Amino acid sequence: MKIQHFTATQPEAVPEAPGVSIRWVITDKDGAPSFAMRVFDVQPGAASPYHQHPWEHEVFILEGKGAVRSETGDTPVEAGYAVLVKPGEMHQFVNTGEGLLRFICLIPHPQP
Amino acid sequence: MKIQHFTATQPEAVPEAPGVSIRWVITDKDGAPSFAMRVFDVQPGAASPYHQHPWEHEVFILEGKGAVRSETGDTPVEAGYAVLVKPGEMHQFVNTGEGLLRFICLIPHPQP
Repeated sequence: MKIQHFTATQPEAVPEAPGVSIRWVITDKDGAPSFAMRVFDVQPGAASPYHQHPWEHEVFILEGKGAVRSETGDTPVEAGYAVLVKPGEMHQFVNTGEGLLRFICLIPHPQP
Repeated sequence: MKIQHFTATQPEAVPEAPGVSIRWVITDKDGAPSFAMRVFDVQPGAASPYHQHPWEHEVFILEGKGAVRSETGDTPVEAGYAVLVKPGEMHQFVNTGEGLLRFICLIPHPQP
């Protein structure tokens, strides 16, 4: 069992996304068998990359105001929104507010 | 893509745990390939069952005060705590506060 406040994990910069940091809160190194939990902080005016990949995201917005950008447009989100990004879907998380946008994002471990 | 506030999902009672409800926020029916996101509400004085199972939990506390019970004792948690329960570990989430204890809990889909 691992029990730890998420701020005990140091944030790392995301090189391709200025103003975005990631905390790897639960990983395979902790003994998680199949998926990892990260916490993202997106500064005002910043955004995650607009991209796609062959694995899913399961996201829960903790604080702030943002938009989820996809091929069908922007959807506003705030605390309490859950987002499933399916494999292969273009997506981006944009901070549209004046404060921090913070969300949890879970991904499966890389397949061997 | 699925984007929805978690309260758009109806809570269901957990028969073996009076005072506990579950919302299945992201599931295989939504097209999630490998794991599901649920939100639990635990009323004051209530608790999830003290049990174990062969799959993991990845939990993030959203609000309230609680304790995670395990074979090594109780660990206090509150908003911002992340918890990895590994397969086979005994565990229970106890509301030790005066308000609601609410947390996200992710599990892998059942193996065929």
